[in-house]
Amino acid sequence: MPKLNLHKRDYVSQLGNEVTPEQMNELIAPKHRAITQRVNRSPYLTEKNVDYRWQKLACPDSKLELLDPHTQQQMSVYDKNIEYFIGTVKLPVGIAGPLRVNGLFAQGDYPIPLATTEAALVASYHRGSSLITACGGASAMLLNEGVTRTPGFAFRNLAEAGQFVAWVVTQFDELKRLAETTTSHGKLTDINVNIEGNHVYLVFEYLTGDASGQNMVTIATNVAFEYILENTPIEPHYAFLDGNLSGDKKANSQTLRSVRGKKVTAEVIIPVDLVEKYLHTTPERMMQFGQMTTVGGALSGTIGINAHYANALAALYIACGQDAACVAESAIGMTRMEVTENGELYASVTLPNLMVGTVGGGTGLPSQKACLDLLGLHGNGQSQALAEVVAALCLAGELSIVGAFCAGHFSRAHHKLAR
Amino acid sequence: MPKLNLHKRDYVSQLGNEVTPEQMNELIAPKHRAITQRVNRSPYLTEKNVDYRWQKLACPDSKLELLDPHTQQQMSVYDKNIEYFIGTVKLPVGIAGPLRVNGLFAQGDYPIPLATTEAALVASYHRGSSLITACGGASAMLLNEGVTRTPGFAFRNLAEAGQFVAWVVTQFDELKRLAETTTSHGKLTDINVNIEGNHVYLVFEYLTGDASGQNMVTIATNVAFEYILENTPIEPHYAFLDGNLSGDKKANSQTLRSVRGKKVTAEVIIPVDLVEKYLHTTPERMMQFGQMTTVGGALSGTIGINAHYANALAALYIACGQDAACVAESAIGMTRMEVTENGELYASVTLPNLMVGTVGGGTGLPSQKACLDLLGLHGNGQSQALAEVVAALCLAGELSIVGAFCAGHFSRAHHKLAR
Amino acid sequence: MPKLNLHKRDYVSQLGNEVTPEQMNELIAPKHRAITQRVNRSPYLTEKNVDYRWQKLACPDSKLELLDPHTQQQMSVYDKNIEYFIGTVKLPVGIAGPLRVNGLFAQGDYPIPLATTEAALVASYHRGSSLITACGGASAMLLNEGVTRTPGFAFRNLAEAGQFVAWVVTQFDELKRLAETTTSHGKLTDINVNIEGNHVYLVFEYLTGDASGQNMVTIATNVAFEYILENTPIEPHYAFLDGNLSGDKKANSQTLRSVRGKKVTAEVIIPVDLVEKYLHTTPERMMQFGQMTTVGGALSGTIGINAHYANALAALYIACGQDAACVAESAIGMTRMEVTENGELYASVTLPNLMVGTVGGGTGLPSQKACLDLLGLHGNGQSQALAEVVAALCLAGELSIVGAFCAGHFSRAHHKLAR
Amino acid sequence: MPKLNLHKRDYVSQLGNEVTPEQMNELIAPKHRAITQRVNRSPYLTEKNVDYRWQKLACPDSKLELLDPHTQQQMSVYDKNIEYFIGTVKLPVGIAGPLRVNGLFAQGDYPIPLATTEAALVASYHRGSSLITACGGASAMLLNEGVTRTPGFAFRNLAEAGQFVAWVVTQFDELKRLAETTTSHGKLTDINVNIEGNHVYLVFEYLTGDASGQNMVTIATNVAFEYILENTPIEPHYAFLDGNLSGDKKANSQTLRSVRGKKVTAEVIIPVDLVEKYLHTTPERMMQFGQMTTVGGALSGTIGINAHYANALAALYIACGQDAACVAESAIGMTRMEVTENGELYASVTLPNLMVGTVGGGTGLPSQKACLDLLGLHGNGQSQALAEVVAALCLAGELSIVGAFCAGHFSRAHHKLAR
Repeated sequence: MPKLNLHKRDYVSQLGNEVTPEQMNELIAPKHRAITQRVNRSPYLTEKNVDYRWQKLACPDSKLELLDPHTQQQMSVYDKNIEYFIGTVKLPVGIAGPLRVNGLFAQGDYPIPLATTEAALVASYHRGSSLITACGGASAMLLNEGVTRTPGFAFRNLAEAGQFVAWVVTQFDELKRLAETTTSHGKLTDINVNIEGNHVYLVFEYLTGDASGQNMVTIATNVAFEYILENTPIEPHYAFLDGNLSGDKKANSQTLRSVRGKKVTAEVIIPVDLVEKYLHTTPERMMQFGQMTTVGGALSGTIGINAHYANALAALYIACGQDAACVAESAIGMTRMEVTENGELYASVTLPNLMVGTVGGGTGLPSQKACLDLLGLHGNGQSQALAEVVAALCLAGELSIVGAFCAGHFSRAHHKLAR
Repeated sequence: MPKLNLHKRDYVSQLGNEVTPEQMNELIAPKHRAITQRVNRSPYLTEKNVDYRWQKLACPDSKLELLDPHTQQQMSVYDKNIEYFIGTVKLPVGIAGPLRVNGLFAQGDYPIPLATTEAALVASYHRGSSLITACGGASAMLLNEGVTRTPGFAFRNLAEAGQFVAWVVTQFDELKRLAETTTSHGKLTDINVNIEGNHVYLVFEYLTGDASGQNMVTIATNVAFEYILENTPIEPHYAFLDGNLSGDKKANSQTLRSVRGKKVTAEVIIPVDLVEKYLHTTPERMMQFGQMTTVGGALSGTIGINAHYANALAALYIACGQDAACVAESAIGMTRMEVTENGELYASVTLPNLMVGTVGGGTGLPSQKACLDLLGLHGNGQSQALAEVVAALCLAGELSIVGAFCAGHFSRAHHKLAR
Repeated sequence: MPKLNLHKRDYVSQLGNEVTPEQMNELIAPKHRAITQRVNRSPYLTEKNVDYRWQKLACPDSKLELLDPHTQQQMSVYDKNIEYFIGTVKLPVGIAGPLRVNGLFAQGDYPIPLATTEAALVASYHRGSSLITACGGASAMLLNEGVTRTPGFAFRNLAEAGQFVAWVVTQFDELKRLAETTTSHGKLTDINVNIEGNHVYLVFEYLTGDASGQNMVTIATNVAFEYILENTPIEPHYAFLDGNLSGDKKANSQTLRSVRGKKVTAEVIIPVDLVEKYLHTTPERMMQFGQMTTVGGALSGTIGINAHYANALAALYIACGQDAACVAESAIGMTRMEVTENGELYASVTLPNLMVGTVGGGTGLPSQKACLDLLGLHGNGQSQALAEVVAALCLAGELSIVGAFCAGHFSRAHHKLAR
Repeated sequence: MPKLNLHKRDYVSQLGNEVTPEQMNELIAPKHRAITQRVNRSPYLTEKNVDYRWQKLACPDSKLELLDPHTQQQMSVYDKNIEYFIGTVKLPVGIAGPLRVNGLFAQGDYPIPLATTEAALVASYHRGSSLITACGGASAMLLNEGVTRTPGFAFRNLAEAGQFVAWVVTQFDELKRLAETTTSHGKLTDINVNIEGNHVYLVFEYLTGDASGQNMVTIATNVAFEYILENTPIEPHYAFLDGNLSGDKKANSQTLRSVRGKKVTAEVIIPVDLVEKYLHTTPERMMQFGQMTTVGGALSGTIGINAHYANALAALYIACGQDAACVAESAIGMTRMEVTENGELYASVTLPNLMVGTVGGGTGLPSQKACLDLLGLHGNGQSQALAEVVAALCLAGELSIVGAFCAGHFSRAHHKLAR
């Protein structure tokens, strides 16, 4: 029977040939009837204790692994970080480095704890870190800081939106005062106004001290938001605490030129002999790779262009009690590789969205704090250094993977020549 | 002194006023001298044993937390997933659900293990899951599958690039045969050709069975790549196994209309009374939120538009031994909320890039396998169901967070009216 | 012969089957030999007169059309707008409207001259304009103004880049003074600093009076750029007057939240009966179209989401002596259609990048000035009103095309019901 | 009074300080009252004759310029291209080139007619064209062709959407037959299915012969669309002929790897002495510019990366009767500049979205046909060559502007050295 040239594995159209529409409907329609199943669906999530939950989950082998004795001992420390606790998942941690960082804030040789289940990842970052350290370290520079919340207000028409803006711009001091009553570390630095038809988005920008700060800015903005709703001379039709301009947990192109969290750049200049020794390739080849993959990345529609920041970020964020969901927004930025006038390799990374903190979130949990302690970066006054270390780590990873792609071709070319 | 109106916290320009250029240079220049530090920089990463590494790291309190007795017992299971092992980091796991999914592959009520250190996350997904289950479950449909590797070839000019393409298009059968010699599950389904000046990118598209498949497609493509390099009548100037079109670990807009990993859609239709009972708001308010935040997301330059898929993905990926770095590419897609003709809430999510597997990677590690076992989705034949469950979970999270933003305003509005 | 599943019409692979590689090479290789051809390739472009050029072009019928008597009479007026003049191309102008605009600057009923060769375009904009006027006019609001030039500076390393920035931030007053010596209307309002590794981009932001201002900001920035190069304590490795952050002639996502040229929003609220009378559809249907096409636009990876601003912009820009190439950057923005509480249609457009001027460029040429005169918007003090009129015109076009798509389905549905 | 740190020229907040909210409302609120104005708003657009329109427009000086004697003579030729005709706007045409193109379709030295009001534009393209011709011409290759229409269908739920897709995939032959009844040249080559929740977008892909084809594919798809609506076993809730995935008149990232209109690449390799003679700079400097501006473009969030394709496209589109609004989608793509092993400059452009035709639209109007005749590319069988010429012209423009930016710095550097 004639068919469209569909994508290679289109289940819907396959079903169209294999099952009747009635059968398809049967499969995916809502099912209000009781389903007999491994788990009894109702009560295991009520606020009872862990054993009760496991009794309901009825999966004793899983219990042994998730609720091991060490975890049972420490259960209470997780109370404020999780609901419906049933145990812990264990991710192996490898140590890469030491990674030498010469930053405005980070100064020293850092052992890098990385939590991952992907083979070769730690080894690759270790290779890049060792190369950087052998060059005297990465230069790193924290460029900017800030976290936003972006309430949205809908009015009946543009005239009302304009009148609202004309009022709200006079309220900055009071909004700042109110927002800062909720936090000892957060500072409201600016409110940016965006009008789109009869909608107004206010971008509240904060400094959040050493916390990554998402909750802090939510709570602070909420107080200001309530003040606005109670005092505005123009009643909005509706309003929400966030209108989705903040870039929270989402890659976005706005922050390429501004910041979410911490914006950092890091670079290293590598002599030819060290490129060859550590990466088995040449600066020229790595520059060529950089050029080809920059174009390739642009053709794929990425935001900024890099090879795999996400690997470094996920592994370090998990190890160090950061919010791993922020990989979504943090893993964008710009990698650049060039050959200097002296024939050395120049490599840099610039990441505008590092959401890192050294207090709050998961940073106080035992094994996560242990990893931050390995870095020497737990607690107050350390988040800026942590951001610089993370950028240098991303640089290490870019060097290592690009080197691998370049050397791969070299070895094959050599094989061919040797025939 | 007059200054530019720089961003609010620009460390460079601050330094410009506070430190001399010489001091700045001193801070971030490469430092080849030995640095006295907490860790002795050289040998702790050689292939010696764990205790040797900890001796060098000299951080005994951290050792106690990372290398606890349970971890010491299981050390050998991590051998193939990590290098330079020093212990494990423990993330608390909470259980949300049961989440009823009516999919082409997933059928049933799933308890959802989520690993996170962010308070309120599990509770929020639980709320959304309970609501979906109360509605008879989410409908879910796996739409497409595929993973790519994208070698790039640079020629001296366009004529050579054209001649190369004219040859390579005749080699598909052999390339497929070779690629598939490296894998028992992977299938090469297509090679797409992209010419850009004298550069050619070949997009190798695979089905990867129940593995997420990044390594599988790399190994398979490498064999084909070597065949091409050895047999092409036109020698490339240089070539790389990947030219950065694959979208590996990077949010990208290409896949919005194709796929990376698994493309899935899920929906639910919710009666007014359940919206009110579970979310304390109305379908109209949630539709308004959807409209305002869709525009907000577009203004921020996101790829696709959603609220926070990343939270669901990071927590479930970590719990279930998935590659958490893939949050970078998986956390894009499209959330939609509308009011039906009957006044109910229609909500759907569509995610084109779910990188999930039920074999390989971290899925066999003890606590990760334990989580997959809770889902009943470990091992062969389960990855398609897992993808549908993940989509339904993202839907649960969108409902819960949107409901929270909507109810927030309601309570405030009520407060105001009550004055 | 086995082939790849290439795109439907891939000339390269077709040639691969139809011509030999040698033939392909023959076709596209550089050809230094003389080519016998219609035109004698060398001298017709030397700075001789028009008749000499036509003699060399040897295309007498074309000369008759391009160098008609009216054009011959006016030849000298084009001297400063074109090089190697050979005549004029004539685009038919239709008149749409009157379009009533209630703006901060535009106040009145505007007849809209549109130059296009696409049938139905003028009629469609006229329909939308008439509808808006029947509603009492579009509300319009100029939100922001600014044009940038973005010089880039490459240093040997990040330390030098940082030292350069630390110096340049102290020079704002002098840079402003110098830049403004070149223009009587332009004002330098800010310089924004972007560091990316060892590269520094300075974003010079200007107000440009009533000119669109691209040349003005180039000349002004060049003076500042030369001052920087001559006075910087840190010599850049190289530097360019523009580093491609300005968005000049390119759609870009940065300006969605800032501005290039003029940022304007316009809206109208339309009673049900007028939607039906003018557009033969309903507010609900148009809102549904808006929702579906907003998602569709997002899936296609557009910047902002609209239906066809480009049609309005190209036609009005050509008629009124604007730079038609700026359609590239101007044709982005956000269209929104909703149903109000009273069941009316709410529609708005927001365009961040309107590059319009009422002095300079092509605005003084005879027929272009004639079109601006029809609008009553030629000369000093009119560019802000022109921007608001353009936004209202885009709104008219969105209403008309969306109405057409909605009514189309209605008529077909009716046809079906009538069977 | 305290204020927000708003953008530099925010009219709304200025007004907030200068006018009362009541006054603001008065300015932009709908005005249903009659407005006394230059033009009498009602009747001048009825289907009466041109003189009647001018009588109503009451702008005699404008009439003289728009309705000159030559235009009056030719009025009837515009009947099918414009509504509410009032005259013609005249754009000066300059001639650049000859531009030598060695393409699969274009073979020869082409004089390039460019219509613009921007001084220096023709001279710049002439410089680039002369340089290319001096190198033996640009190599050019048409890579792909296709134009889409993308109807959207909304169902009540995902099960219905799936059932619809299962049916529609069986209808391809009939849909193709029907679509092609409406056109002698258009061919339906594929239909691609996109499911997003309960919405289905069908991407109809066509070859359109030598017409740019927007109208052709609309008419053809409409017949198929009506067939679907009348025959589908699953009634959609609503459906539209276009769901905004086509990229019509909008820059979009999807087409970077596919095509809209014609996808073409062009390149040239330039010896050092010709770079110096024509552009007064070096290949190295141009490569550096390419690298810095590629990053700059990526930071600004453009789609693809180029300098100013839009200038070439607008000027040639207007001269040659193309749809100038398509500059919006055509002006994206990838420019690349590198230094070859021999130290020469390699430069290429790749444009995926060239909407060009040599029949239909404005190509038959007298002065537009005259320009196509100068190119020798009017009529059937010429559109593919025209696309290759356009790509080569864009390449000429990139060379010229990049050369100008590079030489600029050189001259200044020289000036400095000479002090």
